[in-house]
Parts: sequence; C-alpha cells; structure tokens
Amino acid sequence: MARRLHAVRGMRDFVPPEATLRRRVADTILDIYQSYGFEPIETPALEDLATLLGGQAGENEKLVFKVLRRGERLEEALTAGSELADAGLRFDLTVPLARFVANHLHELPMPFKAAHVAPVWRAERPQRGRFREFVQCDIDIVGEPSVAAEIELCSAGLEALRKLGISGCTVRLNDRRLLREAVEAHLGPLDDPYPVYVALDRLDNSPAEAVVKELAPYGEDRARALVEWVTDADLASAAALSERAADMADGLSTTLAALQAAGHGARFDPALVRGIAYYTGQIFEVAHPEVGYSLAGGGRYDSMTARFGGPDLPMCGFSIGFERVCDLVDRGLFATGAPRVAVTCATEEELLACLAAAPAARAARTGGTVSVLRRARNARKQREDLERLGYSEFVDGKDFVTGPR
Amino acid sequence: MARRLHAVRGMRDFVPPEATLRRRVADTILDIYQSYGFEPIETPALEDLATLLGGQAGENEKLVFKVLRRGERLEEALTAGSELADAGLRFDLTVPLARFVANHLHELPMPFKAAHVAPVWRAERPQRGRFREFVQCDIDIVGEPSVAAEIELCSAGLEALRKLGISGCTVRLNDRRLLREAVEAHLGPLDDPYPVYVALDRLDNSPAEAVVKELAPYGEDRARALVEWVTDADLASAAALSERAADMADGLSTTLAALQAAGHGARFDPALVRGIAYYTGQIFEVAHPEVGYSLAGGGRYDSMTARFGGPDLPMCGFSIGFERVCDLVDRGLFATGAPRVAVTCATEEELLACLAAAPAARAARTGGTVSVLRRARNARKQREDLERLGYSEFVDGKDFVTGPR
Repeated sequence: MARRLHAVRGMRDFVPPEATLRRRVADTILDIYQSYGFEPIETPALEDLATLLGGQAGENEKLVFKVLRRGERLEEALTAGSELADAGLRFDLTVPLARFVANHLHELPMPFKAAHVAPVWRAERPQRGRFREFVQCDIDIVGEPSVAAEIELCSAGLEALRKLGISGCTVRLNDRRLLREAVEAHLGPLDDPYPVYVALDRLDNSPAEAVVKELAPYGEDRARALVEWVTDADLASAAALSERAADMADGLSTTLAALQAAGHGARFDPALVRGIAYYTGQIFEVAHPEVGYSLAGGGRYDSMTARFGGPDLPMCGFSIGFERVCDLVDRGLFATGAPRVAVTCATEEELLACLAAAPAARAARTGGTVSVLRRARNARKQREDLERLGYSEFVDGKDFVTGPR
Repeated sequence: MARRLHAVRGMRDFVPPEATLRRRVADTILDIYQSYGFEPIETPALEDLATLLGGQAGENEKLVFKVLRRGERLEEALTAGSELADAGLRFDLTVPLARFVANHLHELPMPFKAAHVAPVWRAERPQRGRFREFVQCDIDIVGEPSVAAEIELCSAGLEALRKLGISGCTVRLNDRRLLREAVEAHLGPLDDPYPVYVALDRLDNSPAEAVVKELAPYGEDRARALVEWVTDADLASAAALSERAADMADGLSTTLAALQAAGHGARFDPALVRGIAYYTGQIFEVAHPEVGYSLAGGGRYDSMTARFGGPDLPMCGFSIGFERVCDLVDRGLFATGAPRVAVTCATEEELLACLAAAPAARAARTGGTVSVLRRARNARKQREDLERLGYSEFVDGKDFVTGPR
C-alpha cells in the first residue's frame, strides 16, 4: 500500500454535511449583500508580489505563500541570487480589490459597492482554530467619503449574521486618526505610530502592565497613562483631546447612533486597534457574547487604489470571518423540508432501470434529491451514513421501478 | 502616480455583471448535481507535491504552480540544492478527490457521490481563450464498478447543461482499454501505449498524415492503418478486434443506449483519447455544435485512491469546464423579475435617512435589491452603469424617505 498522503499542513478538507452547510452559509451572506446592492466580483487567487506587498498590509505581508518562478526565469533567479518568486497567494481581499478598482474603473459604477467572497491564504504557524486557508466574505464601498459607508457596511454585515441566526452581536468602533491623537497626546508627536498600535493591540490578550513595559521606551509614566486612557475613555474624553479629535468623536457618534437606531449593538472602544497598517479612519470589529474572537471587522482605507496606479478614492470595507461564523450556525437552520430520497439497488440491471426512472421522480418532487446508488453490503451502515446527509426516505430499487409513483 | 499594477498574467478579474452570472451558473450546476445526490465537498487549493505528482496526471503535472518553502526550510533547500517547493496549486480536482477519499473513508457513505466545484491552476502558456486559473465543476462516483456510474455522471452533467439552456450536446464515448486493444492490434504489444495516445489525441487539430508521421517509428503502414481505424471504426469493428474488445464494445453500447433513451445525443468515437494517463475504462467528452472545444469530459480512473494509501476503489468522474459553459449561457436566463431599486442621494444627511429607511423597503420587496448610494456628479452615466447591473427603478433619496412606500 502506498504512503498515506494528507491535506497540506494547516489546511482542511470539508466532507459533505460540512461542505453543504458552508455552501448555504456563503449563499445566505451573498444574498443579503446583494439585497443591499453589493455586486459580486472575482479576482484571481494569485497576485503579483508587487501588488501584495504594495498595500501597506504590515504583518500579513510576511505571511504570503510565494509561487516559484518557472523554467528559465527560475534558473536566472537562482544564478543571480534574485527573487525566486514573482507572485503569491492573496492574504486578504482588500489589497486585490484596490488593485481591481484601479484596473476596471471605467467598467464600474461610482460609487461602487462590491461583494467579494473567496478564500485567502496565510502561512501562519498552524495551531488549534487557526488555519492557513480560510474564506473571507467582504463588502466594500468605493467612492463614499462619509460615514454613510461605515454605517451601511456594518448594517449589511450584521443583517447577514442575523439571517444566519447569529444575533446579540456588538460592533466595537474606533477611529485610527483618533487613536493617533490619543497616542500623541500621551507620548508626544511620532513619525510612525504603528509600533505603538501593535503594542496596544495586545491589550486584548495581555495584561495591561505587559503592554506598559513594551511601551516603556516612550516613558513609563506616559505609557501607563496611554494604556489607562485607551482602556477607560468615553467619547466625551475623546472629544476633549483636541479639536480634530472632537471631529472624529462626532463621526463615531453618528455611526453609533445609526447602528443603534437600526437595532444593532454598538459601542465606542478606544482600545480597538486592528493590526493592519492601511486603515485611515473608522475601524470596527464585531463581537459575539459566545466567543472570545471577532466574527467580522473592517474599516476605512482611503486612497489605497492610488498605490496601484488608480485615482485617489475613498474606500471602506467590512469582512466576515466565514469559518468563525459557520462554527456558530445552527445546523438545523437550512433544513428545507425538501425530501431526500435514496434508491438503493442490488444489481447493475436494477441500477440502470432506476437511473432511467429517476428524472421523472425528480420532476415530480421539485427541490428535492433522488439519489440512485448500489446497495452496500452493510446496508444498515449505508443507511445511517445517508441519514447523516439528510436522507429521510429509502426506497428499494425494485419498488422504485415498479411501484406506484 | 504609482505604477499601474494588473491581474497576474493569464488570470482574470470578473466585474459585476460577469461575476453575478458566474455565481448563478455555478449555483445552477450545483443544484442539479445535488438533486442527483452528489454531495458537495471541499479540498484545499494547495496540495503536497507528493500528492499532485502521485496521481499519474501526465502532462498536467508539469504545469503545477509550486509554492516556495519558507524560512529555514527554504535556506536548507537552497544550501542543499534540494527541492525549493513542497506544495503546489492543484491542476485538477480528480487527484485531490482521490486523496480526500483515501483520508476520509470512514466519514463517507459508500458508494460515495461527490460534487466538487472549485478553481484549478495550470501554468500553461497564456493565449487567447486559455487561462491559468479556471473553475471545474466535477462530479464523481466512488465505489460503483459498473457503467451505471458513467451513465449517471453523463446524465447529471447533461441535465445541468440543459438547465443552463445549453442543449444539442453530444457525448463522444470511448474506452481506454479498447483504445489499447486497437493500438496493439495495429502496432503490436507495447509496454507503454501512452505516447501513442498523445499522438492520436492530436487528430482533433492536426491532419491525419502528421499523426502518421509522428507514429512512423512504429512502422509507417501500421501507423496509417491505426489512424484510419480510429477515424472510421464503429462498435462492430471494435468488437471484432478481440474477445476483450468485444466486452468493452458491449459496455459502450450499454452506456450509449441509456444516454440515448434519456434523450441525450451520444456516439462512439474511437479517436477519443483524453490526454491524461490515469484513465482506466470508459472516457467521454461533451461536444456542442456551436463551439470547437469540449464543454465537459471525464472517465473512469479506478484505483487512484490506492496511490494515496487508501483501498482500491472503482472511481469515475465528469467535469464541466465552467468558463466554456459561461460563455454559452444566455445572459437573460437568470432575469428573475425581482426589482432592483437604486436610491440616489445628494447629501450625507439624505444618505443616512435613506439607509435607515431601506430595511423596511427591502422587507416589503422580498427577493429584490434596494441599493442606497450617493448620486454621482454625472448622474446619467451612473444610471447607465446601474442599468447595466440590472437596476430598473431609480428613486431620488428625498422621495424615498418622504414618499408613499
């Protein structure tokens, strides 16, 4: 017997009941997105490295699966000691969207509302619950400068979750520019606040004192004051930071009020950072009482199209973590009531007769399944396996052909 | 302005009207597959090279996009001059399915009917109509040794095409074992008939004399006789080759008769080869009068699971070339009649009011779209762009909030 081979480390197969659930969940999300006017787009799994590394995605850029050059170009690269790869698998859908918009501007309405549901790949260290291939369900609005974008994205995303039976979510909301105001109010002006953001981001999982230690090079007392501020501040204290901060607090109020008026949970979270460098305005994550991680997140990333040779456009996006949502969906949600009939046959002759009869049976039961297959030696196990896939009616091939249908 | 970046060479973006069509086409195919009892599965885009290169896929193995090892393992490989890659993007869905079945046997009913719709990647020379990323829509039956598998696969596939408005298809049918009988009857016994298959496969595009030339090393007269045979033979002359060939001709008759009885076009094609080494029995391709290429193809590839450490199982598969089918689908097929309403707003205030009012409007029009968005400066162009996306109703934001809804 040959060596047993498995799925690539950190990636997964999905067997039928799971794969069917995934299909239904993705369809539900896309249907809600489309009802809001977000139009499906597709981009390739691979992007040029110049694209992937040109979007200011920070840490994620280090996680790119790179694709080896081929033939002569690989030989040349090996000889010259230059880059062995010139393309890689996308690590998110945001950078490809910005590249897409820059390329297809004349074919798109503007403002443009895009829906993009597809797998992404990150070479993270495989660990429990973290995978190297996962699906993101993104919506983005290109060309809308106001918080109307943030409000619509969060509303559509929360509506999709609600449709999947996931209610009780809370949007945690912050603004990257406000965060910068807060950081500089405490630590003084900084050329690059990104390392401070990365440290503050750890407040989710690390004790506050550890984060203070990490920020000690900026002055320990100042660092402690900053950590306390981002832990405790409300919108009033945010507005008190500066005139610019007051504007941002206003914007956050508008978004929060609109979401709350629509019946969604939403609150200001001054400690919300999101680890990606490209955000330029409001940022958000969706928390759910049953789990310790975010179900969705996003934010404003104006001007990214300009990095890919397009015009400077306002952009804002929202991304649902598909696998995290699938884990929370009640398996019974998609029970349609449409019958699933298994016709099991003892012989090839019976199979052929039942295959010939099946189309008429299918036509008579719209929306259901009629599956013809050979009866297994262990018929009981076969029946149990099929019940697990939702089959509820079992017919002997002999009766299927001759019986009253 | 930054350098303009594009999609990776040989791969494509899909803008909304196309991407929406693709979504509907894939759904239609999967729905038909599921109504026949083919259950969705998913496998990762990446497979270990040992898996990809272990399935006897012949030429396709040369087209693998290989993924660079990372970190220390890459350093080691560079130092040792060993393989720089240990995984690659799948070039078909058949090899991953065989690996999947070997891994998940105890979780699957047997016989197992799988539906697998997903992209594959091949590093072919980019040219008109040939792309490096494309979607395959596969169904496979694992554990059915008789031609009931071939018949059901072709029936389900042709039914899916019919549902997409693509009728008038013809299944071209042959048997790899019969082809071997024919080759050896003319050229004498061969250790490896695969190079002869590859030459005969060119009869689709090259003049017969060119193929005879290529086969001249086997003896020019013999080669010419073989080429003439595969061009002209019918099932009777096939059955006359040998006792084994008579058995295969019998099997082909059974498949043809069942497909014809179900109203599908089907004929024996002794010149049908299919370029992949792994086939072990009947092979088929689906031709359509309007195009010069096949819309779908497949065949029997018994025992492939054994190559991946699983038991020896009969397997047979059918694959629809998704892009080729999308090109033939009438764009009007999916017009649902569900209204698409665009609400255009002049100001942020109007946007916020309309966003708040939109959910009720959506609830009142089940299945339709209500898209709220800022009115563009060039409102006429915006309207035309939205009409192209299927919007037929345009409402001014002011009327949307205050008007009678």
